[in-house]
Amino acid sequence: MRTSLLKMSLVALGMVISTGAFAAEDLMATVESPGKVLKVSLQVAPDGRLSYQVERNGQPVIAPSRLGFVLASDKPLDAGFAMERHLVTAHDSTWEQPWGERRTVRNHYSQLRVDVHQKKDGRRLAIVFRVFDDGVGFRYEFPKQANNRAMHIADELTEFVVAQPATAWWQQAGEVWALEYPIQKTPLREVGMANTPMTVRMENGTHIAFHEAALVDYASMWLRRVEGQRLRAHLTPSANGAPVVRTGSFTTPWRTMQIAGDAAGLYMSDLVLNLNEPNKLGDVSWVKPSKYVGVWWDMHLETKTWAAGDRLGATTDYTKRYIDFAAKNGFRGVLVEGWNPGWDSDWAGNGADMDFTRSNPRFDLPALAAYGKARGVHIIGHHETGGNIAHYEKQLDAALRLYAKNGVDSVKTGYVTDGGAAQFMGKNGKVHFGYTDSQEGVRHYQKVVEDAARYKIAINTHEPVKDTGLRRTYPNWISREGARGVEYNAWGNPVNSVEHEANLVFTRMLSGPLDYTPGILSLEGKDKKPFNSTQAKQLANFVVIYSPVVMAADLIEHYDRYPGAFKFIRDVPTDWDDTRVLHGAVGEYATIARKDRNSSAWYVGSVTDGNARTLDLPLSFLDAGKSYVAEIYRDGDKADYRSERRFDLVIEKRTVTSADTIRMVLAPGGGQAIRLVPAG
Amino acid sequence: MRTSLLKMSLVALGMVISTGAFAAEDLMATVESPGKVLKVSLQVAPDGRLSYQVERNGQPVIAPSRLGFVLASDKPLDAGFAMERHLVTAHDSTWEQPWGERRTVRNHYSQLRVDVHQKKDGRRLAIVFRVFDDGVGFRYEFPKQANNRAMHIADELTEFVVAQPATAWWQQAGEVWALEYPIQKTPLREVGMANTPMTVRMENGTHIAFHEAALVDYASMWLRRVEGQRLRAHLTPSANGAPVVRTGSFTTPWRTMQIAGDAAGLYMSDLVLNLNEPNKLGDVSWVKPSKYVGVWWDMHLETKTWAAGDRLGATTDYTKRYIDFAAKNGFRGVLVEGWNPGWDSDWAGNGADMDFTRSNPRFDLPALAAYGKARGVHIIGHHETGGNIAHYEKQLDAALRLYAKNGVDSVKTGYVTDGGAAQFMGKNGKVHFGYTDSQEGVRHYQKVVEDAARYKIAINTHEPVKDTGLRRTYPNWISREGARGVEYNAWGNPVNSVEHEANLVFTRMLSGPLDYTPGILSLEGKDKKPFNSTQAKQLANFVVIYSPVVMAADLIEHYDRYPGAFKFIRDVPTDWDDTRVLHGAVGEYATIARKDRNSSAWYVGSVTDGNARTLDLPLSFLDAGKSYVAEIYRDGDKADYRSERRFDLVIEKRTVTSADTIRMVLAPGGGQAIRLVPAG
Repeated sequence: MRTSLLKMSLVALGMVISTGAFAAEDLMATVESPGKVLKVSLQVAPDGRLSYQVERNGQPVIAPSRLGFVLASDKPLDAGFAMERHLVTAHDSTWEQPWGERRTVRNHYSQLRVDVHQKKDGRRLAIVFRVFDDGVGFRYEFPKQANNRAMHIADELTEFVVAQPATAWWQQAGEVWALEYPIQKTPLREVGMANTPMTVRMENGTHIAFHEAALVDYASMWLRRVEGQRLRAHLTPSANGAPVVRTGSFTTPWRTMQIAGDAAGLYMSDLVLNLNEPNKLGDVSWVKPSKYVGVWWDMHLETKTWAAGDRLGATTDYTKRYIDFAAKNGFRGVLVEGWNPGWDSDWAGNGADMDFTRSNPRFDLPALAAYGKARGVHIIGHHETGGNIAHYEKQLDAALRLYAKNGVDSVKTGYVTDGGAAQFMGKNGKVHFGYTDSQEGVRHYQKVVEDAARYKIAINTHEPVKDTGLRRTYPNWISREGARGVEYNAWGNPVNSVEHEANLVFTRMLSGPLDYTPGILSLEGKDKKPFNSTQAKQLANFVVIYSPVVMAADLIEHYDRYPGAFKFIRDVPTDWDDTRVLHGAVGEYATIARKDRNSSAWYVGSVTDGNARTLDLPLSFLDAGKSYVAEIYRDGDKADYRSERRFDLVIEKRTVTSADTIRMVLAPGGGQAIRLVPAG
Repeated sequence: MRTSLLKMSLVALGMVISTGAFAAEDLMATVESPGKVLKVSLQVAPDGRLSYQVERNGQPVIAPSRLGFVLASDKPLDAGFAMERHLVTAHDSTWEQPWGERRTVRNHYSQLRVDVHQKKDGRRLAIVFRVFDDGVGFRYEFPKQANNRAMHIADELTEFVVAQPATAWWQQAGEVWALEYPIQKTPLREVGMANTPMTVRMENGTHIAFHEAALVDYASMWLRRVEGQRLRAHLTPSANGAPVVRTGSFTTPWRTMQIAGDAAGLYMSDLVLNLNEPNKLGDVSWVKPSKYVGVWWDMHLETKTWAAGDRLGATTDYTKRYIDFAAKNGFRGVLVEGWNPGWDSDWAGNGADMDFTRSNPRFDLPALAAYGKARGVHIIGHHETGGNIAHYEKQLDAALRLYAKNGVDSVKTGYVTDGGAAQFMGKNGKVHFGYTDSQEGVRHYQKVVEDAARYKIAINTHEPVKDTGLRRTYPNWISREGARGVEYNAWGNPVNSVEHEANLVFTRMLSGPLDYTPGILSLEGKDKKPFNSTQAKQLANFVVIYSPVVMAADLIEHYDRYPGAFKFIRDVPTDWDDTRVLHGAVGEYATIARKDRNSSAWYVGSVTDGNARTLDLPLSFLDAGKSYVAEIYRDGDKADYRSERRFDLVIEKRTVTSADTIRMVLAPGGGQAIRLVPAG
């Protein structure tokens, strides 16, 4: 069933192209992707500066772009380089995901490794490109320094010059909590500093998503537009000195560009996962993709509280109601926020009173764990740190032990900092404040995941560092937030934009799973304010926005009110055998079909922005010659997210085959969800 | 004559507007400029965030813009504020510059001081606005922290939201040596990260120049465009930790906006100087505005070298030729680069071999000093550090002493880092690399100026931190580079653009004097490559580009070749009683008239970009009823910077009065210089 990573095949072909006898040859090294779609060249300029460029089908995608570093500990590594040797190798393998959007991932690339050294003082560096048909990743490899001196990286000079006028979908960086900023669309020339993934569409229709893979012990990369269409890596600042300090030999994260002819191609790329290291945890059958419900939406509606008092949500009685509901409807987990002491004071951005080792007096953790166990339901743990990492790390081991003892095998963590920065313990024993995506933040998040793995606990990080595919290496890093979630639809000021999901699929979702908390069938937030969705779109989001752990976020009583719609939520799985993007335009619409990993059923989700759309869905992904019952959850003919008709949901059944096409009509702000189950 | 700062008059009127009885009043404080041209408001939002806005004649110039800080040592200072009190006072005084563009400066503003505190934890901050009719400066005042804890400022949140679509003239920041990057013109929405001064012109014609004043013990401010027309302060990173670390009570530099209806108005503003502290040096009669020549252009043409060898420039014999020339033509100084040991190795970005305490074997400093003294000529000292500040500071005192002993009262310093960063000595005794405009760079440059003052030596900093008006406080900080100088016209690749001076006047020159090294009458650089100027423009630059110390940069033999043109260079002074901008459009043209501080003569310089222009120059600035001889140095009728006609210079004399208008015809890439001397 869910096996650990299985290397299913491997064809590796190494071809060494040694440096030639002619000096001219040493100034350029080139590699093509396996299907000759992409071509990457690295050049050494007369002054020894390094640059690279990327072509797709002979057309420039990335114009010559700089490489190098400014150091705080030494002279810059930016010029005076000579190419020492370059080596092109080929790689083709497939591996299996323990959980994911698809079971089998092909890792097929050509690699160019270029070793350079500075003629003046002999310092060395290597740049390694992996070129896939659907994108490029490259990273730097630093050797161990003389006397094992620490390398203090002040600035990474890596640039990405987009070769044609382009439109960008991007999110501000350089802010605390910027991962929850709205995604905006502007000409690329108007980007300031962006988080990644940032997606651009060039005038010729080529799409590029810039991101990074395997962000380990390094500062997160923002992209700062220097001028024109020239983007430069900007390392998240550190409170302690240079953004990155490393000792010994090390590699940077991979700088990645997924490159495709359309938006769908971006989402279909597995490049970021492929550039991560294989599973380090061995057997991870204890990591359970599943759905859950939670004592959560109440708090966002402000009908319950996290803090003690009359309206406390995390009580034994109230939790039992959710366990009963979960058991009845096939949810594996129940999240309960506010279960522990520490919420009564001003916790956000502080977190100093949080106690992760015992529960509040009205929440009987062992009793609830036992009550759940008897019904096949697991309590989902919760660690809200208030961004006080220094405080959290002190209790982390005991906190995990408590959960493990009570059968809690999945924990949601949170780092709500109330506009501030996280608190870290310095080497000097003093607490300091810094970005969560700084090098020390990156280390912390990984430490939690590794520590949790020892207790066979999965981690779902909220207010996280961005996802860079580390779920491949640590499959217990089951999901995370790092986007404007559905909670904004509870709070308002403002609610999420109507194109939000169509943006997410082709930007944020390229990085990995999102614990989006979909399924608010009541379609209203605090003070009964509506938000930008039809009921059909709420269902579609379960397929469109991927996460192996998904919270059906609405209140029990709301699900009881809409049993028809709720059936889809009960049915839809969270682990997939395969995934196809059938329609997509960034920020406009997206249709995704996914095959259940544990049955023959397919599920389709389609979402649109504020425009109504008619999309033809050919069912050619179904097994040929087989009949399927299509359970269609569609917008009513007059449905519209701007009126009470947002609740108009039509549920229909049809028998179909792979030769059929379903004409999907999406309302403004609407969507469609389809379950396709083999007939008979 | 040249007195120290003299407070000529002072009318100060303090009017306290205490916080009212109504809470609503506490959410807003407002102040108008003395002539009611500008109005500034500070608001406190319901969540305690602070913002300010600026109107000019009732029209928004700066839309509501955020204030605050992110700290590395504590929670952010960005929200939760309440207004404690605000105080509006008026100030009107005049003061005298020991040297400058004008003798008398009026300092006339309304001040709004707002004291705020964070309700939650009682932390305090004050924001002080000084509102002039021609601009606004504001700064933050930090009280001493509890237990005198150090304040580590990770990020300054100060924003500047330009209220209308605007065009920007800007220079990239975030680079070593960025002050020498070309000035580019783009929509403001396409700015990345800019140095200051950055000048923008809004659609309604209002011009704003963003800059800072009194940059002392703080990181230099870059402006990062966050999105749209929203700019944010970006503090130059430090290699040691937070960009700014301060203990005790302190103030930030003033964040300044010069605001005017046209480009000329920007240049006429004395706001930056007014926001600096008065002269701290007392009698500065030893600071001598003057012209000089130098053993310098030869090296840039590569006909001489800095390093030892056949072509060494800094020899006793060659220097004597320059002293003789200077004496004959009334130049006070002779700069000699390469006079000291250390140039033979790979000095740029290294500088470890530089010896500032003795001269090279072929350069007899005492003999040359005596030779000059007998002829009224001073050797101008030179300290090229190669950016090795750690090394330079060790020798600084001895180096200054050597110069003082030899009558050298003016030193040009240099920080050529070969693309790298400067080297600083850390507290741990280890050298590290960092930006010259980091807090420690700022400290270093000021230390050199203060140390030099003790030896009555003036400093002309090349590869400097940007000028923020500290010449008022330290009048021996006589000039600096910090722009693409004329040396680029020697090097090529590329030469300076034809609109460069018309850009400089309304951007870089708003910060202070520029040692531009004008007057290359030969109009060609290395390998006899021409650059973008007529000969008349070379003369005009002496008036247009202000510096109290000006190097006539061409070779002696070239001046001998053009005695007519050279007469203007001999005549033109470098210290002014008054300055008027008569025409100006950013990057297009500028005409500046200046009155000699030591005679009744006026000088006019006018420059254009690549377009020919006819500009009428009304002479109304002259004393009424007096006759003047106008010595006009104009482009010939067919002059053009793109052909050999660039040498076409016509020298004419006319008698004029203040009632006359001179029609100036500037050739493409041309200029005009006029000397107006009372007749008889």
